[in-house]
Amino acid sequence: MSLNTFGHLFRVTTWGESHGPALGCTVDGCPPGVELSEALIQPWLDRRKPGTSKFTTQRREADEVKILSGVFEGVTTGTPIQLMIGNTDQRSKDYGDIARAFRPGHADIAYHLKYGVRDYRGGGRSSARETAARVAAGGVARAALAALVPGLTITGYMMQMGARAIERARFDASQIGENPFWCPDPVMAAEWAEYLDELRLSHNSVGAVIEVVAEGVPPGLGAPLYGKLDSDLAAAMMSINAVKGVEIGEGMASAALTGVENADEMRMGPSGVEYLSNHAGGVLGGISTGQPVVCRFAVKPTSSILTPRRAVSASGEEIDLVTKGRHDPCVGIRAVPVGEAMMACVLLDHLLMDRGQTGGVRGRIG
Amino acid sequence: MSLNTFGHLFRVTTWGESHGPALGCTVDGCPPGVELSEALIQPWLDRRKPGTSKFTTQRREADEVKILSGVFEGVTTGTPIQLMIGNTDQRSKDYGDIARAFRPGHADIAYHLKYGVRDYRGGGRSSARETAARVAAGGVARAALAALVPGLTITGYMMQMGARAIERARFDASQIGENPFWCPDPVMAAEWAEYLDELRLSHNSVGAVIEVVAEGVPPGLGAPLYGKLDSDLAAAMMSINAVKGVEIGEGMASAALTGVENADEMRMGPSGVEYLSNHAGGVLGGISTGQPVVCRFAVKPTSSILTPRRAVSASGEEIDLVTKGRHDPCVGIRAVPVGEAMMACVLLDHLLMDRGQTGGVRGRIG
Amino acid sequence: MSLNTFGHLFRVTTWGESHGPALGCTVDGCPPGVELSEALIQPWLDRRKPGTSKFTTQRREADEVKILSGVFEGVTTGTPIQLMIGNTDQRSKDYGDIARAFRPGHADIAYHLKYGVRDYRGGGRSSARETAARVAAGGVARAALAALVPGLTITGYMMQMGARAIERARFDASQIGENPFWCPDPVMAAEWAEYLDELRLSHNSVGAVIEVVAEGVPPGLGAPLYGKLDSDLAAAMMSINAVKGVEIGEGMASAALTGVENADEMRMGPSGVEYLSNHAGGVLGGISTGQPVVCRFAVKPTSSILTPRRAVSASGEEIDLVTKGRHDPCVGIRAVPVGEAMMACVLLDHLLMDRGQTGGVRGRIG
Amino acid sequence: MSLNTFGHLFRVTTWGESHGPALGCTVDGCPPGVELSEALIQPWLDRRKPGTSKFTTQRREADEVKILSGVFEGVTTGTPIQLMIGNTDQRSKDYGDIARAFRPGHADIAYHLKYGVRDYRGGGRSSARETAARVAAGGVARAALAALVPGLTITGYMMQMGARAIERARFDASQIGENPFWCPDPVMAAEWAEYLDELRLSHNSVGAVIEVVAEGVPPGLGAPLYGKLDSDLAAAMMSINAVKGVEIGEGMASAALTGVENADEMRMGPSGVEYLSNHAGGVLGGISTGQPVVCRFAVKPTSSILTPRRAVSASGEEIDLVTKGRHDPCVGIRAVPVGEAMMACVLLDHLLMDRGQTGGVRGRIG
Repeated sequence: MSLNTFGHLFRVTTWGESHGPALGCTVDGCPPGVELSEALIQPWLDRRKPGTSKFTTQRREADEVKILSGVFEGVTTGTPIQLMIGNTDQRSKDYGDIARAFRPGHADIAYHLKYGVRDYRGGGRSSARETAARVAAGGVARAALAALVPGLTITGYMMQMGARAIERARFDASQIGENPFWCPDPVMAAEWAEYLDELRLSHNSVGAVIEVVAEGVPPGLGAPLYGKLDSDLAAAMMSINAVKGVEIGEGMASAALTGVENADEMRMGPSGVEYLSNHAGGVLGGISTGQPVVCRFAVKPTSSILTPRRAVSASGEEIDLVTKGRHDPCVGIRAVPVGEAMMACVLLDHLLMDRGQTGGVRGRIG
Repeated sequence: MSLNTFGHLFRVTTWGESHGPALGCTVDGCPPGVELSEALIQPWLDRRKPGTSKFTTQRREADEVKILSGVFEGVTTGTPIQLMIGNTDQRSKDYGDIARAFRPGHADIAYHLKYGVRDYRGGGRSSARETAARVAAGGVARAALAALVPGLTITGYMMQMGARAIERARFDASQIGENPFWCPDPVMAAEWAEYLDELRLSHNSVGAVIEVVAEGVPPGLGAPLYGKLDSDLAAAMMSINAVKGVEIGEGMASAALTGVENADEMRMGPSGVEYLSNHAGGVLGGISTGQPVVCRFAVKPTSSILTPRRAVSASGEEIDLVTKGRHDPCVGIRAVPVGEAMMACVLLDHLLMDRGQTGGVRGRIG
Repeated sequence: MSLNTFGHLFRVTTWGESHGPALGCTVDGCPPGVELSEALIQPWLDRRKPGTSKFTTQRREADEVKILSGVFEGVTTGTPIQLMIGNTDQRSKDYGDIARAFRPGHADIAYHLKYGVRDYRGGGRSSARETAARVAAGGVARAALAALVPGLTITGYMMQMGARAIERARFDASQIGENPFWCPDPVMAAEWAEYLDELRLSHNSVGAVIEVVAEGVPPGLGAPLYGKLDSDLAAAMMSINAVKGVEIGEGMASAALTGVENADEMRMGPSGVEYLSNHAGGVLGGISTGQPVVCRFAVKPTSSILTPRRAVSASGEEIDLVTKGRHDPCVGIRAVPVGEAMMACVLLDHLLMDRGQTGGVRGRIG
Repeated sequence: MSLNTFGHLFRVTTWGESHGPALGCTVDGCPPGVELSEALIQPWLDRRKPGTSKFTTQRREADEVKILSGVFEGVTTGTPIQLMIGNTDQRSKDYGDIARAFRPGHADIAYHLKYGVRDYRGGGRSSARETAARVAAGGVARAALAALVPGLTITGYMMQMGARAIERARFDASQIGENPFWCPDPVMAAEWAEYLDELRLSHNSVGAVIEVVAEGVPPGLGAPLYGKLDSDLAAAMMSINAVKGVEIGEGMASAALTGVENADEMRMGPSGVEYLSNHAGGVLGGISTGQPVVCRFAVKPTSSILTPRRAVSASGEEIDLVTKGRHDPCVGIRAVPVGEAMMACVLLDHLLMDRGQTGGVRGRIG
């Protein structure tokens, strides 16, 4: 079975392959009365789109989104919103070599084994191109969140490339948009540029860690026990292409802490409870506490590289495989806006579970 | 909203609080014709039950499971299986102090904010006691997997306590059941014993990392894109109490690898494809490849400690809180059988999605 | 697969067989803070329980409900509510004859074909005894609705037995509880008593039509297009044992109407829109309008009768089957409280989708 | 909330409004390897499309379907199939009058109350135009069923218009496609033609009853208790625009039968069990028995008529409303292919739950 829908009440169903005519998603369950237009969604897509620097794939896609339903006279109607993005710059001939061969570390072989048939062009359904649909859906979620929870912000950035991590002391949010890596540490951004250039020229690729932080999240979001906020975030982030680990707050490092260290102590401040630390990453018992929600995920290096690797073909031949085509040397870069989009979708979904889609009767007569 | 069901076709709904009369779960979607009895489930529960060593809570619970439905003449009938476990050793008076106070790092405050009312005795619904129901459900999943996929094994162990990690070179699976920590490294087990004793006596607690490995998993399991095998595992593990991070294969460390390093190269062996490494942890594109499925998760230190921490009460008082009661100094220990149970449930669920519950007409006439 | 859960946000999972030790349900998603106790649920169960007149099965069950979780100090906590009802008066030996034979018109053969194994005692899972769990869940739904929508009422009654239908002109709601048939027409109640006595003595059974009306339903409930209020009601009612047809408003009779006749014309009244008729049964486009929601369903005659019928056995023998045991001559009678319970559950479910489970942050600090 | 997805494993998500640029659906969970093309789906759409006789709306739509994903080299890949149908003949200006007025018996007022905003043009989301997407999805389901269950057939027809029902004695399946009413009784077809002409000219409309029969359905389909085959069919049919009643087998008439009459007696025939009647309509205990599955539903008369009806406007004015525009005088006619499509989707969905999406590993290596 395939399951191409995520969310409980705010449900996004994505569709489309890398080299088909188009891809997109149906966004179902968005509250009515939210201002929405293509112009409001497009900027989020522009952040993810390929071909914007030498550090991402050279495929040129405008990633222009069309709204086909669910919006009337500039506002959502509460009915499903269909978002479509055309594919325009496919070069399917690049993929002839892998029609019957399996890239090491790539979904090729798994799709072959499961389905017996696959659209191999550009990775087909397993391509990171699908994440354009997620970012479009995230744009809808952001518009709804802006209307429902003023002041809520979602910020993603890359904090590690290969073994090179940013220094928290140099963290400067204003730098995030100023370099091709969504890097909040300008010193590290420069270092990454040099490093990634080398890697690219040596036909290699590299992994990354992305952090997404949501501030202004109301307390009480999360549906324990199996729709916990952190559990849903973990599923959402792990569903992004190439992600191999997800952390909330201290994450894996929490194993090394003692209970005395890990306690987020509390005092009363002028506007209520104040926490003296945020090891929990804003989630306790699967429910938001009002602190910033902090989620991190690791993206493995792109498996499509120009360095030959030992592989096999569908007919059982042993081959040395070199992957041509246009690939991201660090696919983690473009995962930043995707992670933000998933955060937006999950938060809105949980907000709607607590507050409902309409909040009661909306229309009046007389 | 609360969502107390997990799984797509093999669905487990848990219920119960720490200090209520009982807890349990409904296991729905188990294939018919699987041999099942209380005696087959009980051993898994015995592995998780409290009070078995000085390193776990001293609460004494037999954790005796009763099957109330879904089994007839020793086999499952395909109808829902109700499993009930009595609570017998509650000491609710221990919890009077926290009826109106919130332990730092505990779900107390989040439940209070979300629901406005909570059963504070023993943590109520947020207690790790709920995981008994998961382990019972895992027992059912194991019985079904044994019937459907002979040779499939699931093994969990603790690989890190605090900053002390096992050495892979000393890994000895036969040691796992021989110490109170499910530790495959006997040297480290001894070290942990000493360390945890100290921590316990100094009124502190500590985190841990657990690894669960499934071998003999058929390829093709996983429902991309939003029911990916790894995505469902991430949600399952993150839903366990106190878990803050989940990894598949290389996990967070994959960020530091290059594409050349991370490629799991392939050759043909006598029984088909052989992989020369398993950085992927047995999952590519969200689908199992036939390699061992490797999942790790970090458990934060128990937040209920005897060392005073700064906290607040529901009435807004600033207090110094000491948590009495019987608590695990390293709750990660008892998370090992829970992680195994979640792995079993997720694998069976995906197997059923691919193969169906009955596989077609089961009964014959004449 | 079996699917033993219904509802979107207010989700009820039932379990149990006719002759097992107990049956029950988990009610998940009930809002927190609702007053609830066994005493509040029991009266609804008493309406459905068997053995109260000569017109229902002579099995004697107290149908005493126990709340095992989800309620603390008299109010719901927002966590799953486990309701358990013991089976006490099983006579499994009555069923030896049908262990390997299939009653015409009964689920026996279908369960056999699907699962290959079944608990044949008292119909096992397919027994109408399962509806006790629904009625208990309905009691929870009613308690929540009473808190959330003051003035909402749900009333069920039998309006047809065999070919004998009540006369609308004689409809008297106060009569419903005054006869063993939940009949609002006292003249017809007397006629039914005589007719059913005859049928019973001639080893026969008969069908019925039940109508359930909800008044005071807020407008706006319904999740078009595939969670329409009427669509969910149709599924809910059709899932009750022996139901073969479901109608909303005019129902099947709407086929015979013209558009001029069927229009529910509107005028403005002192408190808003007034409808001059209710052909629609309170639902338009799958959404409640504020008019009474009117739902009817037909229950086929009990298939277990003492008159011999031609049947086959699992080994392929042709037999003449007489069904011993204690059966309802008109199972429709006891379907009345079940229909009411399903209506309550569906309405609450939709109310929560529109308004959310908590309506926002519930707990305050300071 | 809106819920625009139906199905458990074979899931269809529809989107689009009557006067938007397009409408369509995402078909998720279709097994891989099924032959599929636009040419295979289009004939089903041609049966439903408007403007083919004077008895349906005069809106001219080619209803040309485009497959945008999920099919590669002529076969399904197991990934989501996006089907899009353009809207080309909107005349939105016809609807100016109802922008702020509510047609009696129409979804207008319910959408207004629920959402506070609506696309009033052509009924927006509540338009029967949405059913084009269902029919397209049904085409996919039929293609998969043809591959998985050779010999399964699904046949729909109209059996009643107004008070005029066909005579079973004159039933001739070969006639169904030979008249504009999908009528299996040629005498009645002629009568309907005359009657509907009169109604149309007198600015009126009329209801209808449709029957859909599936033959060759394997036994064992149905997921008791809340995904019963008949319960899912009831939800599916009731979700079609204007449907007010659903029946399985004897349906509402089963209320008038005795147990002796209603028993579908059994004998052994050359190929197994033979039933001597089919009062059950092929479903017992919510599970298919192997007999033909028989489902009927009633469609109310079109509410948009040229005869003035008393209504109100959003501002609370009392008006006499005449609905201009192009409307079906008997919308039941075009519901026939829609009912067939829903039957196909429900049957495939249940087949996949029993047998799985892939049936195990599909691809081989070497």
